[in-house]
Amino acid sequence: MKNARTSHFRDVQSGSSWLERLRISLGLRGSADAGSAPDAIAPLDQAKRLAAALLSERGEASGAVVARELHDVLRGLDADDRSRFHRHLATNFLPDAAALRAAAQAYLAGATAESAARLAQAADPPRQELLRRMNMATGGTGALVAMRKELTAHLRDEPALKSLDGDLKHLFASWFNRGFLELRRIDWQSPAALLDKLIAYEAVHEIQGWDDLRRRLAPDRRCFAFFHPALPGEPLIFVEVALVQGLAGAVQPLLVQDGDDDAARQRAQRADTAIFYSISNCQDGLRGVSFGNFLIKQVVEELKAELPHLTRFSTLSPVPGFRRWLTGTLADASAADAAALAELKIDGWWRDASRSEALRPWLMHHCAAYLTRPVASKPPIDPVARFHLGNGARLERINWLGNAAPRGIEESFGIMVNYLYDPGTIEANHETFAHDGTVVRSPDVDALIMARQRREASALN
Amino acid sequence: MKNARTSHFRDVQSGSSWLERLRISLGLRGSADAGSAPDAIAPLDQAKRLAAALLSERGEASGAVVARELHDVLRGLDADDRSRFHRHLATNFLPDAAALRAAAQAYLAGATAESAARLAQAADPPRQELLRRMNMATGGTGALVAMRKELTAHLRDEPALKSLDGDLKHLFASWFNRGFLELRRIDWQSPAALLDKLIAYEAVHEIQGWDDLRRRLAPDRRCFAFFHPALPGEPLIFVEVALVQGLAGAVQPLLVQDGDDDAARQRAQRADTAIFYSISNCQDGLRGVSFGNFLIKQVVEELKAELPHLTRFSTLSPVPGFRRWLTGTLADASAADAAALAELKIDGWWRDASRSEALRPWLMHHCAAYLTRPVASKPPIDPVARFHLGNGARLERINWLGNAAPRGIEESFGIMVNYLYDPGTIEANHETFAHDGTVVRSPDVDALIMARQRREASALN
Amino acid sequence: MKNARTSHFRDVQSGSSWLERLRISLGLRGSADAGSAPDAIAPLDQAKRLAAALLSERGEASGAVVARELHDVLRGLDADDRSRFHRHLATNFLPDAAALRAAAQAYLAGATAESAARLAQAADPPRQELLRRMNMATGGTGALVAMRKELTAHLRDEPALKSLDGDLKHLFASWFNRGFLELRRIDWQSPAALLDKLIAYEAVHEIQGWDDLRRRLAPDRRCFAFFHPALPGEPLIFVEVALVQGLAGAVQPLLVQDGDDDAARQRAQRADTAIFYSISNCQDGLRGVSFGNFLIKQVVEELKAELPHLTRFSTLSPVPGFRRWLTGTLADASAADAAALAELKIDGWWRDASRSEALRPWLMHHCAAYLTRPVASKPPIDPVARFHLGNGARLERINWLGNAAPRGIEESFGIMVNYLYDPGTIEANHETFAHDGTVVRSPDVDALIMARQRREASALN
Amino acid sequence: MKNARTSHFRDVQSGSSWLERLRISLGLRGSADAGSAPDAIAPLDQAKRLAAALLSERGEASGAVVARELHDVLRGLDADDRSRFHRHLATNFLPDAAALRAAAQAYLAGATAESAARLAQAADPPRQELLRRMNMATGGTGALVAMRKELTAHLRDEPALKSLDGDLKHLFASWFNRGFLELRRIDWQSPAALLDKLIAYEAVHEIQGWDDLRRRLAPDRRCFAFFHPALPGEPLIFVEVALVQGLAGAVQPLLVQDGDDDAARQRAQRADTAIFYSISNCQDGLRGVSFGNFLIKQVVEELKAELPHLTRFSTLSPVPGFRRWLTGTLADASAADAAALAELKIDGWWRDASRSEALRPWLMHHCAAYLTRPVASKPPIDPVARFHLGNGARLERINWLGNAAPRGIEESFGIMVNYLYDPGTIEANHETFAHDGTVVRSPDVDALIMARQRREASALN
Repeated sequence: MKNARTSHFRDVQSGSSWLERLRISLGLRGSADAGSAPDAIAPLDQAKRLAAALLSERGEASGAVVARELHDVLRGLDADDRSRFHRHLATNFLPDAAALRAAAQAYLAGATAESAARLAQAADPPRQELLRRMNMATGGTGALVAMRKELTAHLRDEPALKSLDGDLKHLFASWFNRGFLELRRIDWQSPAALLDKLIAYEAVHEIQGWDDLRRRLAPDRRCFAFFHPALPGEPLIFVEVALVQGLAGAVQPLLVQDGDDDAARQRAQRADTAIFYSISNCQDGLRGVSFGNFLIKQVVEELKAELPHLTRFSTLSPVPGFRRWLTGTLADASAADAAALAELKIDGWWRDASRSEALRPWLMHHCAAYLTRPVASKPPIDPVARFHLGNGARLERINWLGNAAPRGIEESFGIMVNYLYDPGTIEANHETFAHDGTVVRSPDVDALIMARQRREASALN
Repeated sequence: MKNARTSHFRDVQSGSSWLERLRISLGLRGSADAGSAPDAIAPLDQAKRLAAALLSERGEASGAVVARELHDVLRGLDADDRSRFHRHLATNFLPDAAALRAAAQAYLAGATAESAARLAQAADPPRQELLRRMNMATGGTGALVAMRKELTAHLRDEPALKSLDGDLKHLFASWFNRGFLELRRIDWQSPAALLDKLIAYEAVHEIQGWDDLRRRLAPDRRCFAFFHPALPGEPLIFVEVALVQGLAGAVQPLLVQDGDDDAARQRAQRADTAIFYSISNCQDGLRGVSFGNFLIKQVVEELKAELPHLTRFSTLSPVPGFRRWLTGTLADASAADAAALAELKIDGWWRDASRSEALRPWLMHHCAAYLTRPVASKPPIDPVARFHLGNGARLERINWLGNAAPRGIEESFGIMVNYLYDPGTIEANHETFAHDGTVVRSPDVDALIMARQRREASALN
Repeated sequence: MKNARTSHFRDVQSGSSWLERLRISLGLRGSADAGSAPDAIAPLDQAKRLAAALLSERGEASGAVVARELHDVLRGLDADDRSRFHRHLATNFLPDAAALRAAAQAYLAGATAESAARLAQAADPPRQELLRRMNMATGGTGALVAMRKELTAHLRDEPALKSLDGDLKHLFASWFNRGFLELRRIDWQSPAALLDKLIAYEAVHEIQGWDDLRRRLAPDRRCFAFFHPALPGEPLIFVEVALVQGLAGAVQPLLVQDGDDDAARQRAQRADTAIFYSISNCQDGLRGVSFGNFLIKQVVEELKAELPHLTRFSTLSPVPGFRRWLTGTLADASAADAAALAELKIDGWWRDASRSEALRPWLMHHCAAYLTRPVASKPPIDPVARFHLGNGARLERINWLGNAAPRGIEESFGIMVNYLYDPGTIEANHETFAHDGTVVRSPDVDALIMARQRREASALN
Repeated sequence: MKNARTSHFRDVQSGSSWLERLRISLGLRGSADAGSAPDAIAPLDQAKRLAAALLSERGEASGAVVARELHDVLRGLDADDRSRFHRHLATNFLPDAAALRAAAQAYLAGATAESAARLAQAADPPRQELLRRMNMATGGTGALVAMRKELTAHLRDEPALKSLDGDLKHLFASWFNRGFLELRRIDWQSPAALLDKLIAYEAVHEIQGWDDLRRRLAPDRRCFAFFHPALPGEPLIFVEVALVQGLAGAVQPLLVQDGDDDAARQRAQRADTAIFYSISNCQDGLRGVSFGNFLIKQVVEELKAELPHLTRFSTLSPVPGFRRWLTGTLADASAADAAALAELKIDGWWRDASRSEALRPWLMHHCAAYLTRPVASKPPIDPVARFHLGNGARLERINWLGNAAPRGIEESFGIMVNYLYDPGTIEANHETFAHDGTVVRSPDVDALIMARQRREASALN
């Protein structure tokens, strides 16, 4: 406050005189105080006029002020009016039909680089330019991300909104380019306001308040997130990492680790493996803009630089589609399979050691089979598997009762999976997976598949 | 270095194993050390293969690494090879012709929002996606800006490069959106490396080394610049402001002000006027992406907040087109005009008081006439005037011998102009100028125009 | 981590070779690996040798390394050995007796400025120089503050430690000079590690976890703390402020305020009064070094600058000595007083409106009497009153049931007090109080005193 | 400016009402506007009254405000009045004579830890407490450092000032303790205002403006400085380092290195040796408070951490006392010596190769002899040698014509010296030098001494 020198600025501070003048010239206000004017313009109409003005040449001169005013008006709308405004955006601000028609005809008459470029230009919807201008105000990026989050809920009912959704996604893919993101480590020194958001955004293993959070930021943990300069304090995606000895196969021990910082520091010293046990996207409005692949690979590099004694980087991941696939696949099961499926309906089967051990080889085999089906299978490959395999990870290990929490039992009978990120083979794995859909896996996984085949084979005799 | 905690990260640090693998898989290197391989691939071809890989699905998985490698290879090319690579970008990576043709036909068959959106998508050149992926590497934005700067030099000779230039400009207009820029004050506490760049980039009144620079950052001066997070330490545009009493009409007194900080502080206390006496774009590669309008208006707001006693915000601007216009316009001049023009060819006429005073009313009148011609005139309006009037400024005062430096004499016979930015009238001025090209001006300027007319009228009698 | 440039450094990082050599030369280690040497030196003796070395000329050459090693050894000692080391410090490192004797004699023989200066020098205990050198290591200041905290517990039993305690206090008073402190605002953007400490250090109104903490940092609250550069992240003292309308007389409403940020922001806008409702010293090791006076006055200035509409700055303070004084004073009470005292022993009397109202005038009067006794009274004036009155505050208002929590009832029958910090009268108040012990008070407080006197007078008739 | 949150504060901003009241109560101002009062108090007397008030109990309540006012008044004094104020400080604020006398007698009657402590307390001059309170104002530390700088000039003429000088030095030694200093790297990214100070403070090899400075901060250079938190932006001491191959023996090549950053970066990559070629104390007011030893050793550690390929750390140092010693020593020289001395009086002898080569062995031998005399010699050992040898460095090499600039020729006939800081032997070297004054040196230096002895021995035959 007392710094004579300023280093950051946010917005046109007090453009009140410009703004006043602007509102008058748009007819949003009488030239005297129009607060009580009988012919006051409805807020939705104000928003529409401001959007039109923003896209006009006036937007070129006073874009930031007009954009800010538009966001202010939009914030004051109720949900229905905001929906109406979204529809207004979606159904207007189309390319000039005559010009586009002419450009399309010209291209068909002679397909050259020039005619293609002119066609692209003619097809570029003015709506995108309008959205770019809405971004000129301070906080504009955040408001646009929030707008897309809100309209998502209506996409099914109102397909007309798809064009607006598509334009926003297109812009966000460009604006949230990897080159504009910042990776930051998050720890107990981070602002409470940011940590609060981790608690809210964690999507894989819920954070149970501040004590739990502190455990996840202990000295044997790492947490990293991507940020964008226009959304300060807002993580886009974050990953939680545990530093352990050996490949961790179960998540509960990681979550209940005790909080003694010295012990944790020693564990970090002895660790040879980094387990990525949770990765959460934070912004619904950025759906479809992908950050996870970059985040994991960058964090592997950060960890290698900070802790050279780490030799292994692996996820501990859920298998969200396994139960659905298994019960679907074995609909017309053998008697043995039907018996096993019946066992699995008994609540608490996993806490009964003998029952659980009896089911283990059968479930492990099927899970291995599920995860190694070719990518083009029907139903499609498990989404978590697709993500990591597509990134070049290897299916390393399938873990029995890796997650005995209700969600883990529900999704995959408690099974969790390690996907290994080995910098030396990532490229080759990716190629293999991308070119022919083959899932690169460890001998252990192969053994799981084979084990059953042998057993089945022997059973036939 | 000793900070256990890191807050910023730049790039995949040591992705050497990935990279090695990548280069092998692209055939850029044998699987052993290929440094001395007889069949080593030429660097230009390496760049082309990397560009292709970057746009392929491989780019999705390892985009940042491939992009970085591509930039590394490009940096090693000589200028001719870089030009060849630019041509390669410009003439390839076109939209799929069949798909575009089909989308164009579909649109012509039925122009709906959907068919328009599909046509826009089909027309979107893959080159833009390639450029976006090139941006994923650390330093990618800077490299792309530098690429556009370099190819500019060849645009005239190679019109084929225009498509690449256009795509870059389109991306930059989106990426350097006002909402992503940061305004920062620059002063004597700023890093020397940044101040160095001011010296290099100042385009209006050359900075004569560090002592001159320090004067321009004295306590009665302000300097502000826009920065972009992806180009740290690189100003995009900056403006120099002097805090004075009254409307300054000559630039030399501002430039030679003495360096006593206490006296300067007192001048700042007494100042009622902020004079914007120099505004310089810094990045040739961002040509056509406009920042000046936003910068001036934001700086006006900053100054009002910091120094509430300021009541006037005005430029002190050159008139770069006046001499050319005058000599062209008066080609078939009256005898009186011809005599005046002849006088102006005498070197040093402006140092000869009687000569100079004799020319003054004649030149001032013509300059007023020059600056107030309608915007659609031929030859077009003065570019500096067009910029400020388009922003909503008012033509406030025309100053005799405002700049007696050679460039000032050469361009405009030493005349300089004040354009006034009055927050209360900016909107109205802008509208007037935009709608019918009328130049809003002060009564003083009107008087200059009239004066001559009266004189000419009386001369006729 | 990736910053090529470093801005802060902490300590000689890896002075291992120096250190090794040092330990050998002090006989702390054999020149080969002495880890398993049979004649290994006990850690306490190592600490003593290192202390001696640190004070020797060796400490001049390698002070930071020796000091760091000493702190490392001390950290490894058990509590008993640390106590022994404290005794060692306290009973050794005395001034040279012969030199001091000579200087004393010389001064007595001729008291000049020079002989006084030489006597001061001779009397300056080498222990202080030793402590200064222990401060040279990174973290040395923190270790010394912790040492004083630890030895405090033994001061009663071991008066010999008083000299060490006194030397530490003398050094801390110099090192923690106001000129070296930084005031910082603390809010929800502050690091969680710091906020954690607020929860631990709050000494007046306990913070009940993170939700409570967040309420205390809401937009209508302010929290400020002093920090010292050598104890980063460690608050020395902090104050909690509520922005309210009117003079708040009860603390519970402040503590349970709801958490809606927008409502809080509006309360802050409307506020005319800042209530300092909690001020806590954080460092036991700095006992006797006073910060509170400076903190309150500085925060008043900060708040005036940030929120010009604030017109009143007041505490809401406990009266910790009231019950003890009242029950002691009225030991031989009148029947009426005895009856009142008996009432006050009934648990929950304050929740019984009729009982409570009956006691109110009697208690309020006595509390006013208690707080306005001259400073030299026996028993002495209330410590909280002494602090604020000594700072120049005015006894503004005595509040009935200002704190109905058990501690408030226990200490002062729930009464709380507002001390008003009025910048315009602080100096005069302070003088009045300092010169003759008169407690400056408001007419309201005078009325409370008088009310009873009148009542008693009428009762006599 | 727009940061809602503040992180640093400087001082009571606008304590004008307190201040006004304070001035009135000190009689410095009438209760109305006393600006034109006929009985206005002279500024020197105002300063004296403020000093008295600051030391009184008033200083406890309002110390920061009184201290600031005192500094403001002092700044307005002319040099003579400031000197008078220094004398006032030096000759007043003495310990209470009666109390000191009593404490001295008590100690002589019974020398116990307690009586010694009480004597120390009684002898502690109130002046020190006054100076500590003067430090409470923002900028107080800087003002006190400036005060000591100023009074230094008068110490010779006014021995009475010595007590004030001594008290200031005592306080500074405590306040500028190594534990409170920050090491920072300085480079071309540092603020211009700081770099400006390097130019001003460089005491060994003058910096010739900004271009020269930039060379000294090139990528194959390092510059580090100590800072104190209370003197922001003010280096206390800085060292300039060149990264080279082999032990550099001449300074001019280091100073004229060309400015191509890429070449410099490559030199840094290849470097095996860090040459400390300039170390400058910046604050005259801190004379006698030693930083150099700590700085060099810390920088060695920093460089080892940043550049692990460095294997040698050495100074390139002047020999400021050599010429004086040589001409003094050889006053009654042999004819050969007299002839050599005569040669050395010929201007430019060092540019005449044959003359120079003839003098070389004779001068090199004498310089080796000069530098290796026992520390207790008369005249005393060279001050630069004493500093580095006392730090534990080794006399490594004596360099012929290491500095052919006028000052180098003048001081030491152009000879420069490398002192080697070898972490593994620093402790042992220091002990050797400290215990018996033996100068640890390399075989090369021994050879220089011997060479001549042998030559002289042979000459005798």
